[in-house]
Amino acid sequence: MTAVIADLREVVAELQAIVGAAYVIHRPEDLIVFEYDGSVDKAMPQMVALPASTEEASRVVEVVGRHGLPIVARGAGTGLSGGAVAEEGGVVLALTRMKRIIEIDPEDQVAVVEPGVVNVDVSAAAAEYGLYYAPDPSSQSACTIGGNVAENSGGPHCLAYGVTTNHVLGMEVVLADGSVHWLGGRTRETPGYDLRGIVIGSEGSLAIVTKVVLRLLRQPESVRTLLAVYREIDDASAAVSGIIAAGIVPAAIEMMDRLCIQAVEPAVNAGYPMGAGAVLLVEVDGLREAVEEESAEVERICRSRGPMEIRTAADAGERARLWAGRKGVLGALGRLAPNYYLVDGTIPRTKLPEALARIGDISDEYRLPIANLLHAGDGNLHPSVLFDERDPDELDRAMAAGGEILKLCVDSGGVLSGEHGIGLEKREYMPLMFDDDDLNAMARLGPAFGSEGMLNPGKIFPTGADRTHVSHSRAAAKAGAGAYI
Amino acid sequence: MTAVIADLREVVAELQAIVGAAYVIHRPEDLIVFEYDGSVDKAMPQMVALPASTEEASRVVEVVGRHGLPIVARGAGTGLSGGAVAEEGGVVLALTRMKRIIEIDPEDQVAVVEPGVVNVDVSAAAAEYGLYYAPDPSSQSACTIGGNVAENSGGPHCLAYGVTTNHVLGMEVVLADGSVHWLGGRTRETPGYDLRGIVIGSEGSLAIVTKVVLRLLRQPESVRTLLAVYREIDDASAAVSGIIAAGIVPAAIEMMDRLCIQAVEPAVNAGYPMGAGAVLLVEVDGLREAVEEESAEVERICRSRGPMEIRTAADAGERARLWAGRKGVLGALGRLAPNYYLVDGTIPRTKLPEALARIGDISDEYRLPIANLLHAGDGNLHPSVLFDERDPDELDRAMAAGGEILKLCVDSGGVLSGEHGIGLEKREYMPLMFDDDDLNAMARLGPAFGSEGMLNPGKIFPTGADRTHVSHSRAAAKAGAGAYI
Repeated sequence: MTAVIADLREVVAELQAIVGAAYVIHRPEDLIVFEYDGSVDKAMPQMVALPASTEEASRVVEVVGRHGLPIVARGAGTGLSGGAVAEEGGVVLALTRMKRIIEIDPEDQVAVVEPGVVNVDVSAAAAEYGLYYAPDPSSQSACTIGGNVAENSGGPHCLAYGVTTNHVLGMEVVLADGSVHWLGGRTRETPGYDLRGIVIGSEGSLAIVTKVVLRLLRQPESVRTLLAVYREIDDASAAVSGIIAAGIVPAAIEMMDRLCIQAVEPAVNAGYPMGAGAVLLVEVDGLREAVEEESAEVERICRSRGPMEIRTAADAGERARLWAGRKGVLGALGRLAPNYYLVDGTIPRTKLPEALARIGDISDEYRLPIANLLHAGDGNLHPSVLFDERDPDELDRAMAAGGEILKLCVDSGGVLSGEHGIGLEKREYMPLMFDDDDLNAMARLGPAFGSEGMLNPGKIFPTGADRTHVSHSRAAAKAGAGAYI
Repeated sequence: MTAVIADLREVVAELQAIVGAAYVIHRPEDLIVFEYDGSVDKAMPQMVALPASTEEASRVVEVVGRHGLPIVARGAGTGLSGGAVAEEGGVVLALTRMKRIIEIDPEDQVAVVEPGVVNVDVSAAAAEYGLYYAPDPSSQSACTIGGNVAENSGGPHCLAYGVTTNHVLGMEVVLADGSVHWLGGRTRETPGYDLRGIVIGSEGSLAIVTKVVLRLLRQPESVRTLLAVYREIDDASAAVSGIIAAGIVPAAIEMMDRLCIQAVEPAVNAGYPMGAGAVLLVEVDGLREAVEEESAEVERICRSRGPMEIRTAADAGERARLWAGRKGVLGALGRLAPNYYLVDGTIPRTKLPEALARIGDISDEYRLPIANLLHAGDGNLHPSVLFDERDPDELDRAMAAGGEILKLCVDSGGVLSGEHGIGLEKREYMPLMFDDDDLNAMARLGPAFGSEGMLNPGKIFPTGADRTHVSHSRAAAKAGAGAYI
């Protein structure tokens, strides 16, 4: 790549020749919808290209690279860490047109899909064979497989089944020079270095995923969902510890605190009692007999902690209603405050009670309510700091409170991100976990993939140090940022 | 590193100062035992250093690097692909003294161990908490965790539980410059690039593992092991297909053919009928009720294929005896021929009958018996070509037959290695799966880790192309190879 101030008009014309005029978006009024993802950050790209195929995606990347502009791959834009925000301008490569389910192979139990396929559509297509795709982010009815791969997404059922990387067998990717490669394959073992694994969770900074081979699981014979309601959150935490200590690994253990309940119940009517301090949602799946035995044991443990109420979903409809509460929380937090900052961090699950107490202190210190939503079984916290961004002081306090929570996670032996990625949001916190040597070791993978500074620049790594190997082309792109045609 | 012809006397003295005189082996007569691993290749290192701690290992690596010699990390030397053979001479870093189990944490269900810990000792130490470590290579009573990480080892029970990479949460590593880093952590999610994942399976070529955080699983409540004996191997294959098609994922499905039975039964007295064409060993584990239901279904399917006999282990002793047959096969093959070449490849499990038929043809073509041992449930074949290495023509035919089997695996949609790694043995076959671009993309990770040509050089990548970035130091080391003091 040579340093050029890109002639944006020329880039638009070249991209139009590849994907068609209708699929290059470049007018500022049209670009506004690509300014956001699900995080608090925003920035305007210079243009958006929507390829229909790997070949088109490859040619777009090659052209954009030649002009020295950065590329930000994007799916549905539901990400919560700013991974799809084009902070440095450049070209957004929106993969939402590439949404074919190419193959469902019931014998080998794999699906081959394009990156723009919506998560829940994979399970829908696999259902006729009695199969499903396990990782289930709460945004699964909107988020795409490409974004799931980029962020190594989790979800409630990852407690038992693992996160995205445990379910992606292989991928077709486009590198920064436009070349197309296959990483991994159709089985769990591939010889040589695990390039598949390193691309998963790399937030679009090493390669752009254009096809994905997913592992499908057999649908469980039986599912039992139990709601346990407690007056105090400590009792809910103790029930979680009791379940884990009994050696049970439910499919999911979700926890919501008082604020979450107050937000979601009026909106969704999930049947969560408004006066409760916490609800637990525990799901057990598997063979019918095993489910009966395990759910009876879960119920016994939950009862021993003095619940206000315990309810078991009697049918699929009731199960869906209980889950609707959990999945509706984020949308409903808007009822409590104009904005929320959803923090994503993990702690060792044995430290749940102390961590929740400390989050209560942080809420007091920063004078902002914090609603706690947790994948409790694996210690993945989602405290949401409620604030009003129109008050700059509140915004500052919200961000600072979030930072305190992340420090708490790391200090207690957990990590900075359970499933949402680092993106823009947490890049400045990376030094909490990694020293300069560690970060430099990671940053050296950019050049190894030939992606230096061109693919999703500025994400993951803290600003300041020259870790992302800012190239001349990127500097040139920055010089051109803000110019639209 | 600068290009120097290493003064071996000086290197020995420096290493002795670090690890103690007793733990530097340098006399040719003492080095002979380090010439081999479990593969057919052999080569003599110039010296062996046995560090007792991470700090000693780090200092050894720094000194050896300064002298421009290659380093080959080694555990128990049970590897089957030549990964621990010091083909280019240099220093073998034997990690067998680093065998402490540092911690078993029953609450978070993790073990922290040094690389020299023997695989089976982890489960032994975790047993008092009702926990165990799932990956179980057949060599598990000898092989070490460090070697398991290097080769991303599998084992019979990986069908249900996944291979090593699914059970390693974090690692302390020494890079080629002697620096010490932590990759990953104590939970399944770590932000940033998955450097943990790329080191697992990299065969000691990127980093040397000095501590490993392992995920422990809860011991199953119940285990049922079933032996099904068939007159013809096709019936056994059909039973495997039937089990998979019924949506059952047993903990293990192992298959052995006529030759394996004839070799192992007289040696081990596992109770396999000598006249049989194949035996299947199917193990189901989990909650008691689920195990009863699933094993009844497995038995029904196995019966439908007209077995000579079906037997269920009535107790732990009988279970151990059935497994002793499976685990004793390799040792027993020596009864049939002076040498065997154990091939490790995978096929889509739906193609088992065709693949076995084709292996029969290959046996005829090359006029050598081939004994088939299979992790049948996940399509991982272990055909063992029997030969006598004293007959050069037989050796050539054995190697050629192995190559044909690997081609068969790749052609049918499988891969070159299921669990033994590439090492020296299969490096020339890598182009069957990967083109030059793919291999170059992998090779660029060496420089990213700063390991170019110094850590286990010559493994994984085909010879010829300058993919492993042969450094001057390596050339210098080669010039010095063969010199001992």
